Amino acid sequence: MPLIRIDLNEGRTDEELKAIMDTVQDCSVETLGVPERDRYQIVTEHKPGRMILLDTGLGFERSDKAIVIQVFTSPRATINKTKFYEMLSQKLEANCGLARKDLLVSVMTNTDVDWSFGFGETQYLSGQLPKDEES
Amino acid sequence: MPLIRIDLNEGRTDEELKAIMDTVQDCSVETLGVPERDRYQIVTEHKPGRMILLDTGLGFERSDKAIVIQVFTSPRATINKTKFYEMLSQKLEANCGLARKDLLVSVMTNTDVDWSFGFGETQYLSGQLPKDEES
Amino acid sequence: MPLIRIDLNEGRTDEELKAIMDTVQDCSVETLGVPERDRYQIVTEHKPGRMILLDTGLGFERSDKAIVIQVFTSPRATINKTKFYEMLSQKLEANCGLARKDLLVSVMTNTDVDWSFGFGETQYLSGQLPKDEES
Repeated sequence: MPLIRIDLNEGRTDEELKAIMDTVQDCSVETLGVPERDRYQIVTEHKPGRMILLDTGLGFERSDKAIVIQVFTSPRATINKTKFYEMLSQKLEANCGLARKDLLVSVMTNTDVDWSFGFGETQYLSGQLPKDEES
Repeated sequence: MPLIRIDLNEGRTDEELKAIMDTVQDCSVETLGVPERDRYQIVTEHKPGRMILLDTGLGFERSDKAIVIQVFTSPRATINKTKFYEMLSQKLEANCGLARKDLLVSVMTNTDVDWSFGFGETQYLSGQLPKDEES
Repeated sequence: MPLIRIDLNEGRTDEELKAIMDTVQDCSVETLGVPERDRYQIVTEHKPGRMILLDTGLGFERSDKAIVIQVFTSPRATINKTKFYEMLSQKLEANCGLARKDLLVSVMTNTDVDWSFGFGETQYLSGQLPKDEES
């Protein structure tokens, strides 16, 4: 936790995809306070025309390099979310050449009992993992 | 926002997919009150057997043309959601030939701070976008 | 409802995928109390490297057979969720040979008005389906 879905157009190399995934994880660790091995990422590549991403009238056009990052997580404080967005934008540009206009992030919130990380156990309830504070 | 995932079986042409996406966007604008350029859509096509969609005992069988529309959005009033479902059903039939039994819609709700539309900014908090009222 | 997304690496046969889907449905029926035909499942297969699933420091390494099960549902009681995780772990191992470490489950909650199962209707509000109790 969090579980992060990354959707983007096909055309990037395996190395480019890995760099994106690594960068997203770095940002999660730094701004959301998750452990290094708290990493659950799924990338889905799409053929042309399967993603349409506009701008809600903000005044820019996205390129075909645009990325959607959808985060499913237990509650996170506003300050952590805003830092997460900022760092994603900075580091994805610096590490992966992603234009800052080409990043859409959306977060969905659940809670401790909504996660089982293996063995059918509920590790936040059993005490195997510390309860995640809304830090 | 909303971010809309559309899942369906492979076999439609690019033009047919585009018509579905356009129709979903028209319905969002008309019933959810979003701006025209508030458009974030991801279509995923699946091979046969990867989607199983039954009927909860309502008494119909879906065809292999069935579509799942999953909407991630800030809060929407009941009246807007129900109008959205109705219009989707009507317009997808009229514009795309989708049988009305072949449409499943599910909505997940988050809030203003859960969206960053670009540049690592939180446009609903910064005032760049008007806060979405539960209209 | 629930709508269940199953993400896994490519390489399983159609029969193996079907067995996973059937097992997940059996567990939903038994532990979440849903009707047999309350079944909405989407499997997405990924190329190598598109899923990175670690362990939050719990002390195990997942194999390339690991599965992510993401459940979108109206509210479910803690006891039902924990039984669901346990049974998934047991039955996926017994029926599909899935190692118990190779299962990640995450649940996201919505409510009655968030579902339209066909015909643009809101079957939980209209009374065509009984309201789902948090059982």
